[in-house]
Amino acid sequence: ISFKKVIELFYNVVSPYSWFGFEIMCRYKNVWNIDLKLCPAFIAGVMQASGNKPPGLLPNKYKYMSKDLERSAEYYDVPFNPPADPLDVMFRKGSLPAMRFVTAVQEKEKGGDKLVEQVSRELWRRIWGEDKDITEPASLAEAAKKAGMSDEEIKDALEMATSDKIKNKLKGSTQRAVEYGAFGFPLLVCHVNGNPELFFGSDRLELLAHCIGEKWLGPRPDRAAAKL
Amino acid sequence: ISFKKVIELFYNVVSPYSWFGFEIMCRYKNVWNIDLKLCPAFIAGVMQASGNKPPGLLPNKYKYMSKDLERSAEYYDVPFNPPADPLDVMFRKGSLPAMRFVTAVQEKEKGGDKLVEQVSRELWRRIWGEDKDITEPASLAEAAKKAGMSDEEIKDALEMATSDKIKNKLKGSTQRAVEYGAFGFPLLVCHVNGNPELFFGSDRLELLAHCIGEKWLGPRPDRAAAKL
Repeated sequence: ISFKKVIELFYNVVSPYSWFGFEIMCRYKNVWNIDLKLCPAFIAGVMQASGNKPPGLLPNKYKYMSKDLERSAEYYDVPFNPPADPLDVMFRKGSLPAMRFVTAVQEKEKGGDKLVEQVSRELWRRIWGEDKDITEPASLAEAAKKAGMSDEEIKDALEMATSDKIKNKLKGSTQRAVEYGAFGFPLLVCHVNGNPELFFGSDRLELLAHCIGEKWLGPRPDRAAAKL
Repeated sequence: ISFKKVIELFYNVVSPYSWFGFEIMCRYKNVWNIDLKLCPAFIAGVMQASGNKPPGLLPNKYKYMSKDLERSAEYYDVPFNPPADPLDVMFRKGSLPAMRFVTAVQEKEKGGDKLVEQVSRELWRRIWGEDKDITEPASLAEAAKKAGMSDEEIKDALEMATSDKIKNKLKGSTQRAVEYGAFGFPLLVCHVNGNPELFFGSDRLELLAHCIGEKWLGPRPDRAAAKL
């Protein structure tokens, strides 16, 4: 019997720091003795429920974040390339159809989460790598196709995405994050000795490693391990 | 000739994350090829100038921060022990006399910054380790005594702390942080190839190391180095 530590990763594809946290954790899931649960959720719901304001709305924070995202992406080795108008992408266009679609993909996927991982990645790549839309069904279909879904699977998932079942599933996941105490994403919830330990952001993963008794090997553990 | 990279550390003793950043950087100043400049500054001035709100005022953030401070302190090996009423300590009592005193100590100190480092540490230890006052002259004197200052030096520094010269020096340091783009502390400004690179908080020091071409050895580089 293996006692893998369960780590829930709450994320939203409109959040660039979520992307970094997601990629690093996806690398570590094969290195650490963990069971990484991908939890697509709706960030705007979390911000509203917690009363938090996006950091990007304060001029000095926005300037800092722009620079911090760039150099973090380089160090974390994520193909980040900001859209021309990040505030428009994040706050006007938003991510509700995209996150419902990801939730539908997850609902459909049996025996693993490879597809939900890959579809999420392709959505981030569109918005935070190629300045492409993620609000239209055709855009979601394009991402899903790149992720390896068939036309029929995509049609199914697009249909499911507008059903009450999927809407409620996304609401439920968002609500669960709020109940843990979320005020933004990414949120990592580590279950250690029966207690949920929260880590907000992509910058506390060394501390997370320490808390779950694993070794931090930097942002590319796959390559670090290969070098040993 | 040695080309040490200059790193300015803007901090305030009312800010617990400043304490963590300060202690880690003080450990690394003997490990990395850097010239660490201690810049005591006034956090309330930075918050006001940037329009930022303290994270502790949002319930979910406050809860998260309390937990995050505790486990960070343990991992960073800083003798942190929160006061009974952190909001009172941070926002009602504040740190203006303390930061003016630290500024006076820095102004008086010749040929180094051992004293300003030690006095700052003793003030953090009082407020964030022992739940003791740092607003009264007697409190400042007690911290300074522990830091190794003589009674006469302390009397001098206390007098200086209320002078226009010192008030203006603290204002100037705070203004400089704002001009760099500060919206909170600690703020680390690394001068790399003539450009200031900003790092906010105590959780980006691995990335900072990468940016200045040094190796991140975790929060206790002194002990890590000893093990090699």
